[in-house]
Parts: sequence; C-alpha cells; structure tokens
Amino acid sequence: MAKKKKITVQKFGGTSVATAEKIKAAAQRAIAAARGGNQVIVVASARGKQTDHLIADALELNPNPPKREMDQLLSTGEQQTVSLMAMAIEAMGHKAISMTGSQIKMVTDSVHTKARIKSIDANRIKKHLNKGCIVIVAGFQGVDENENITTLGRGGSDTSAVALAATVKADTCEIYTDVDGIYTTDPRIFKDAVKMEMISYDEILEMASLGAGVMHGRSIEFGKKYNVVIHVRSSMSEKTGTLITHEVPKMEGILVSGATIEKNLAKISLIGVNNKPGNAAKIFAHLAQAKVSVNDIIQTEVSNEKANISFTVSKNDFADAQKTVEEIKKKVNCQDAFYRQDIAEISVIGVGMRTHCGVANMMFSTLAKAKINIDSITTSEIRISCLVDKDQGDKALISVCKTFELDKPVEKRSYVK
Amino acid sequence: MAKKKKITVQKFGGTSVATAEKIKAAAQRAIAAARGGNQVIVVASARGKQTDHLIADALELNPNPPKREMDQLLSTGEQQTVSLMAMAIEAMGHKAISMTGSQIKMVTDSVHTKARIKSIDANRIKKHLNKGCIVIVAGFQGVDENENITTLGRGGSDTSAVALAATVKADTCEIYTDVDGIYTTDPRIFKDAVKMEMISYDEILEMASLGAGVMHGRSIEFGKKYNVVIHVRSSMSEKTGTLITHEVPKMEGILVSGATIEKNLAKISLIGVNNKPGNAAKIFAHLAQAKVSVNDIIQTEVSNEKANISFTVSKNDFADAQKTVEEIKKKVNCQDAFYRQDIAEISVIGVGMRTHCGVANMMFSTLAKAKINIDSITTSEIRISCLVDKDQGDKALISVCKTFELDKPVEKRSYVK
Repeated sequence: MAKKKKITVQKFGGTSVATAEKIKAAAQRAIAAARGGNQVIVVASARGKQTDHLIADALELNPNPPKREMDQLLSTGEQQTVSLMAMAIEAMGHKAISMTGSQIKMVTDSVHTKARIKSIDANRIKKHLNKGCIVIVAGFQGVDENENITTLGRGGSDTSAVALAATVKADTCEIYTDVDGIYTTDPRIFKDAVKMEMISYDEILEMASLGAGVMHGRSIEFGKKYNVVIHVRSSMSEKTGTLITHEVPKMEGILVSGATIEKNLAKISLIGVNNKPGNAAKIFAHLAQAKVSVNDIIQTEVSNEKANISFTVSKNDFADAQKTVEEIKKKVNCQDAFYRQDIAEISVIGVGMRTHCGVANMMFSTLAKAKINIDSITTSEIRISCLVDKDQGDKALISVCKTFELDKPVEKRSYVK
Repeated sequence: MAKKKKITVQKFGGTSVATAEKIKAAAQRAIAAARGGNQVIVVASARGKQTDHLIADALELNPNPPKREMDQLLSTGEQQTVSLMAMAIEAMGHKAISMTGSQIKMVTDSVHTKARIKSIDANRIKKHLNKGCIVIVAGFQGVDENENITTLGRGGSDTSAVALAATVKADTCEIYTDVDGIYTTDPRIFKDAVKMEMISYDEILEMASLGAGVMHGRSIEFGKKYNVVIHVRSSMSEKTGTLITHEVPKMEGILVSGATIEKNLAKISLIGVNNKPGNAAKIFAHLAQAKVSVNDIIQTEVSNEKANISFTVSKNDFADAQKTVEEIKKKVNCQDAFYRQDIAEISVIGVGMRTHCGVANMMFSTLAKAKINIDSITTSEIRISCLVDKDQGDKALISVCKTFELDKPVEKRSYVK
C-alpha cells in the first residue's frame, strides 16, 4: 500500500494574489508542494483592494447595508481568487479544483460579518485530494445552516486556513504574506528588529491584541485549541519564517520575545468616584451599551470612600466613550474626568516572565534612564505595558528593545541562558 | 382570508444595473410593483462589462480555462449585483433578500458554461416572498447535483427569469432592457422601424436564430413550453414594451411581423458532389466534428450523378469550415468548392405566411425592382430568407421593410385585414 501522503495547507493573503504574476507564483508554490509528495490545500483571500472596492460599491447604495447582504457581496472576492488560481494551476499542468465555503460545507453560526466556524466537511476536500487535485478553498467565508453565506471577520482567511488544517489533520499550515515572518518589534521604528524563529500562541495573542497586526487573534486561538503549528512566511522567498506553536521549554529562557507600541489609544480617567460596590460596573456597563471596547483598566483607591478609575480605549471609540462618561459622571458621584489622546502604550511580551523576576524592573529603569515618564502601568502574566507621552513613544520602544536585545537572535542575547 | 397576491418577475440585464444610479432605478421599480400589491422576484445579470473583465482575468492565467472554474468565476458577477440590489431596496425601506442559484436550488445538468435547468425549489423563494421580501435572484447561474456552480450560457439570465416565472406560476415576467421593446427590424438600418406590441414565440425564435439579438432562443423556448408571457420593455420608461406570447388568431392577418439582416455569414458551395447516399451526411458529420455550426443548407441536383451542396456558417466558424471542406473534398468526389464572405441574409418572418400565399413573391419582386440579385433562397414555415451581396444588404432590408410596411403599426398596414 502506498505511504499516506502528508497534507499541507498554504494560505495566500490579498497582497499575495493581487496580480496575475502573483497568482502564478502562488500556483507554482502549491504545485511544488504537491510534486514534493504532499496533498495540498490552498486557502486564498480576495485580491488586493477588491474587498475595499466592494465595500465602496455597497456604501454608495446603502450607508448601513444589511450584514447578510454584505457577506453575500464580499464572499465573491475570494470566490474569484480561487477559481483564477485553479485555472493558473491547471495551465501549469496540475489538477486543481476551487471550492467556496458553501461547497466544502464550512458551517458557521449566523452572526454575519463575524461568524464563528462550527464544522467543516473534511470528506468533501479529501475526495478531491485523493483524486490528485490541489484543492483551493475560498478563505474568510462559510455558510450558516440555512445556506446563507457568512464571513468570518478580520483575519478570516487565516482562521479558515487554520481551521482547515485542524479538520484534515494537516502536517503543516503555512501562512504566506508579504513579510518574511514575525519580528521582535516593528522594524519601521526599531530598524534592527529581527525575525523570530518561533513564538508561542499565548505570546502572539498578546501581541495581536496590542495591534501588532501579524495575525488575527481568532486564528491563533484556533491553532492553540487544535494544535496546529502555524508557519508565517514570505510568498516572495524560500526562507523559513516564524513558527507559532505551543510553548516549549526553551522559550522560558527568553525573558522578552517581542515588544509592541500602540499609538491609536486614548486614556480616560474618572477622579474621585464614590467607592461603593457596583459603581465601576455601572460605568463599564454604560460603555458597553455605547459599543465602546475598553482595553486596560486601572483602579486606585484614594481614600476609604473615593477611588480613581482609568481606562484606555481605541481612538476610534474615543468620542463615544467621552460622551458616555460625561453622561454617567454624576450618577457615580465622580468629581472630575480627564481625557488624554497624546499617549502611547509600550509593551514587552514573553512567557519567560512567568518564571523570571526582574523584567518589570529592567523595563522601568530603561525608561527612567531615557528620561521617559511613565503615566501608568498594567501587566498580564506574560506582558508588561507602560503608557507614556506619545511624543516619546518611539524613543521608549527603541530603548526597551535595546535593553532586551531584540536586535539579536535569541541564542546571542546576553540574558538568555 | 387575504386575497392571494399576484407574482411578478422582473429581470434586469447588465446595462440596467451598470451604475449605482441604475441599480437604484431598478430597485425603485421593484418596490413600486411590491407596493402595487405584487409579490416581486427580481432576476439580475452581472453589471455592465464585469463579465468581460472576469474573462480577461481568466485568459491572462489560462488561455483555455477549465469550464467548471470559469463558471465558478463568472457566477460572482451576478452574485455581486443581487446583493447590491438587496442593499439598495433595503435603503429605500422595503425588505429584500438576495439569492444565488445555489441558494434557490436552481439545479442544472453538469454541462458547464451552457447548463440546462432541471428544477428550481419554488418553496425557497416563496418562503421569503410570504415574509414580504422582494427576492433578488442571481440570473445566469445554477448548481449541478454535486453543488458545482454552473452557468446557462448566452442569454442565461433571461432563461433564469422565464424559468422562475414558470416555477412560481408568476402572473407576469418582465424583461427590462435598454430598448423599449422589440422592433419590426433593426432601426439602425431602417430608421422608421416600429415597436411591435406583440409577437409569437415561434416568430421571435426565428428572429433570434437569425441573430436579431433581442432575447436568446432558449429563454423563448422555455416561455413557450411553460406558457410564460414575456414582456420585453425599457428600464428607462413606463411605456408598455413588446409581449411575447402564444400565437393568437389576429396574428395571422399580419403577413410579416419583422425582418432581419445577418451580415456575419459566409457561404460555402461544393460543386459536383457525387450524388450517392451518405455523401451529404459525410460532409456535415465532418463539419460537426470540427465544431462548425451550419445554418441553412441548399442541395440541388445537377444531373443524375452530381449535386451542388451549399450552406452558410457564421464568419467565426469560417476558417474551420474551409479547412474541413478542403480535407473532405476528395472523399466525396467534389469537383470544386467556392467560398463567399461578402454576403448578407435578408429574412422576413411572420406566422401569417402559414395561411397566406404571395409573401415570397412580394419579397422577390421587391428585390428585383431594387435591382438586387438573389444568390439563393431558403424558407421555413414562417420565414423566407434571401442571400444577397453584402454591399446591397442594407438597401435590400429597407426595400423589404417598405413593402411589408414595417414602419407602421399593424392595424395601419394596407395588407392587414
């Protein structure tokens, strides 16, 4: 009996399929994997700016388009890419078949524009793989139980790829993109940033939630839940990229894996709030009602009766947040409210923090030495974040990166044992 | 109990949905019908030149794209239109839902790019109609029994509309287009052509097969088979257009309903073919094998042993036809073959011919009076066609139109009783 073939999932994002030449390059990569003895599933996004164009078409007709119809519209972008890629692969002499979310029965819930995957019919894909086809699946889309087309929201094609890899028990899940992996920090600010070989799901989740924008959180959560090792790599080169995996012991020695900066933030402080049970809940319930998404929250007691409550929100939500706070102020006996939009949040992330003390201290003294004032601090188990003046944000990030030697490969850092 | 509502099908072609303004106009028309007490099904084509653009994208990647993938690609055009139109209708305050061929289970055979409809699930549409939605269905597309997307070929959206009208037993089936109905002849050549109020399925079928290009033959056949009265009308006005119906008695008085000219023709003549059984079959079998579609055939005996065989083909097929004839010539003992590309075919069509003699004579003497030589003549029960020099084509058409008074409404023609 023939040896069971390995299964590879390759995901190509919008920029990697934007032109005919790029589709051909992606097609060649899929064929190379197939000729190398793999069964290959390709997941593709809509081409280049197509989704933006479709959204513009929609808004011209309806400033608030029904979400079901938006999904029906946007899903055509991926459908076009996958059929074109199947044509390209066939032109190069390999069998290929394209599949929509509906055709592979990628069943989701009915929450249009941010649906969650419930199940995928692996047999529909395997049938074609076993016939020797490269199967090209439209990312980002599924169908609910009534055959309405749904989409998975931001980063949805990554989620499709990881979910498919989990469903067919793929051996590898490659995410092709226009960068050659995930960097220790944003190279536009710290030009000596280096590519990470490996990062844990938890670390990348902290980075993603801070807006590092490499991969969307949901696809990472999927990978973590179903043990899919995700390989983020460049569609323009053969170099290994960054592996996103479960935590392995050697990661512990790396105090800080990466650092991020978030500038699209505003900070809101409520001063002298009556410190009685339910007051904080009241504030955040009103913000939730106004659809304001709150990031970090800091509450400090000023006296037995009074507390100060601060929190950060995305700048996009700032106007709504301010309006809500002004409305609620009196109800919670708040003496005053302050608003700051000139802040930046610098964060360092690393699973090593769990077992090593001193990381926070290294960060604070670095900022002190650089004469950067820390407005406030929040932490999670594997993250330390400081709010600083926006003007000093880049300088703060660079100082921190130097301290944690994020310009060197892991094995060359002085603090890594 | 409430009175059962009438059901209206409205089909909008590519030019009628090309811009946001045109989509809004179509949406308004659908809403007007709904507010007038109808249940409304809209069938829409891909916007403007979109199908052409998608075909160009495909050919850039594969000069001979697999037909299944072509269907997967092209079907996105209609899907985009229907979701956009649903958004437009919702923006105007009426409930709407868009449906793909797959979502209404428009099941076809598996002949990609020219599939034939096998069944439609009327309940899927009626469910939404009964909820008060305008249902907007993607024309031109279906799915085969394995959920592969299929398309219906040229004029497919018309076929979708007529098939839907038949399935839901619609009271009217309106085909909106950029002309205000079907004219007695091409007004670009005979500027006094008038709009017909009514024409029979059989007549329009003869006109369609002659390239009059109003509606594709298959949709007419569907209408004829399932008794759907088709109303061809303008998307830019409220005027009644042309009704395509079963033959009614009063049509018999109209000797000639319309006249056509076809210039995209070539004529091939095989001279002195051995007149023995099977020779003609051999010729046309070879042409069929070369995928040449043969129009009219004329065979004349020259002697007991010899015959001349002539036929016309579309100019697009001429090169293939010529090659085939040159190959087959010796096998059928043909003495010579002649090729003409400088011809035009003038036809008059009318069910009245069945019961009235003299139409052929009127046509021939008209051409004689205009000093136009007739190369050859073919007829069907309701059609007479003459091949003439291409240079004289327009003049011939105009003369014939004048003779049969195709510049006048039916009731004002001198020969109509």
